[in-house]
Amino acid sequence: MIIFGVDPGIAIVGYGVLEYKGNKFNVIDYGAIQTSNEYTFPERLKIVYDELTELLDKYKPDALAIEELFFNKNAKTAIIIGQARGAQILAAVNKGIEVYEYTPLQVKQGVVGYGRADKRQIQEMVKILLNLEKIPKPDDVADALAVAICHAHSGNFSDMFKMK
Amino acid sequence: MIIFGVDPGIAIVGYGVLEYKGNKFNVIDYGAIQTSNEYTFPERLKIVYDELTELLDKYKPDALAIEELFFNKNAKTAIIIGQARGAQILAAVNKGIEVYEYTPLQVKQGVVGYGRADKRQIQEMVKILLNLEKIPKPDDVADALAVAICHAHSGNFSDMFKMK
Repeated sequence: MIIFGVDPGIAIVGYGVLEYKGNKFNVIDYGAIQTSNEYTFPERLKIVYDELTELLDKYKPDALAIEELFFNKNAKTAIIIGQARGAQILAAVNKGIEVYEYTPLQVKQGVVGYGRADKRQIQEMVKILLNLEKIPKPDDVADALAVAICHAHSGNFSDMFKMK
Repeated sequence: MIIFGVDPGIAIVGYGVLEYKGNKFNVIDYGAIQTSNEYTFPERLKIVYDELTELLDKYKPDALAIEELFFNKNAKTAIIIGQARGAQILAAVNKGIEVYEYTPLQVKQGVVGYGRADKRQIQEMVKILLNLEKIPKPDDVADALAVAICHAHSGNFSDMFKMK
């Protein structure tokens, strides 16, 4: 199974592509799509959508896993990142790829095994599980790999996390 | 100039297409794209994107005008509608159409002439300005026509409202 993890955003969109087979991970690719604020927001949305579409065409994943957004206070940020996340979901659905979403808590549980893990512990676990020499940077990339791992570990329960 | 107005949403997306020529409006089309909640959110996003793309292909507008979102409290709703708005902006930019955005206050000023107008006054003014027999329903359609009118009336200032 090939899993495409995404950390939603507009300036930096982390992604990680993993093959999961017999309880083992094979790292296919990871990185970040970055858009400069010299472009307008619609242009940045198009850059993200086009680059993501290209990656999905290249790796043909079985699933796209994406973190749920939580914003307690800043509705303005929620709208901006929400718009970007919409373009990212659309890139997947336009390629016929199922979208799964996980809360930050579920990602922690799925990667480290318990929900109160901190950011650093998650990143260390991503490094160990994927046999990487160091923690991928920026954080958005490690986050994207974490949500992909979480999807792999959700196993038979993954249907519960299919985006409704 | 052909203007395509959009009232962003996911269950109902109002749209209105106007030609504005010599200070007069010619109504080309209006209506609503509706998506049932029997579909998943990614499927609904695709329906909205595909139907909007089809309308943009049909009417080839010079500009797409869309209202800015404001949510004071409910960040969850902000994220959902934000995602939908992202797909709507993407449909425009993927067709090379400039996107303009107006706050609710600017729409009121642009349609009725003052910012404290209520919903009913806006709708009446939409009906009068466009020579319609009755106020278009649902409200989302009247709202989409209002933002299109607002863009027409922004005239030489329209660059100020180009989405950054």
